[in-house]
Amino acid sequence: MNDRRFPWIILIPRRADITEVHQLPGEDQILLIRESSAAAAALGRLFKAEKINVAALGNLVPQLHWHVIARFRKDEAWPGPVWGCGERRPYEETQGTELRGRLRGALRGSTEQ
Amino acid sequence: MNDRRFPWIILIPRRADITEVHQLPGEDQILLIRESSAAAAALGRLFKAEKINVAALGNLVPQLHWHVIARFRKDEAWPGPVWGCGERRPYEETQGTELRGRLRGALRGSTEQ
Repeated sequence: MNDRRFPWIILIPRRADITEVHQLPGEDQILLIRESSAAAAALGRLFKAEKINVAALGNLVPQLHWHVIARFRKDEAWPGPVWGCGERRPYEETQGTELRGRLRGALRGSTEQ
Repeated sequence: MNDRRFPWIILIPRRADITEVHQLPGEDQILLIRESSAAAAALGRLFKAEKINVAALGNLVPQLHWHVIARFRKDEAWPGPVWGCGERRPYEETQGTELRGRLRGALRGSTEQ
């Protein structure tokens, strides 16, 4: 998510016409929770997160997507949820590129475990 | 959750000292997503939910717990998240008992599928 207030990954299962986790076949649900946990571990390590939030809401965007968010006691929304909190603050372009690279490296580490 | 504004189930894995989904062993993560989906399907059927929200936040209560919430375009928090929205409205005692009975029946249906 292009919001530098919160280190935030959105997983979008490449499955058509699905709006709810429980609509996925069992094996895809397992894949989703595994990938969610890999993303959570990567964010946790990379940002020394104090808490990870994971969620599928989809009240505004129905296509199934899964949030994995690193949280901190000093972040703007704490202890509330991040959704609907204030205004998004995009990364600078180089900052975004550099972060994607670090995330890719950390995800590689998570999925190899 | 004892809040009649939202049909809402909280799953609490009986595992000690766990605060994050990704701390659970793989087989427990699979059990969690399966039980989450059974709860989601039961809530969906029982309340004709327009959307289901599932989430593990735990910013306030660290022990791992998992929310499964039936949402409606006309509910008090829509399209925002339910957490931190207004004041909880407890069920009447008989209403709560009756609802638990209906949920048990619906969950039985979900887990048998």
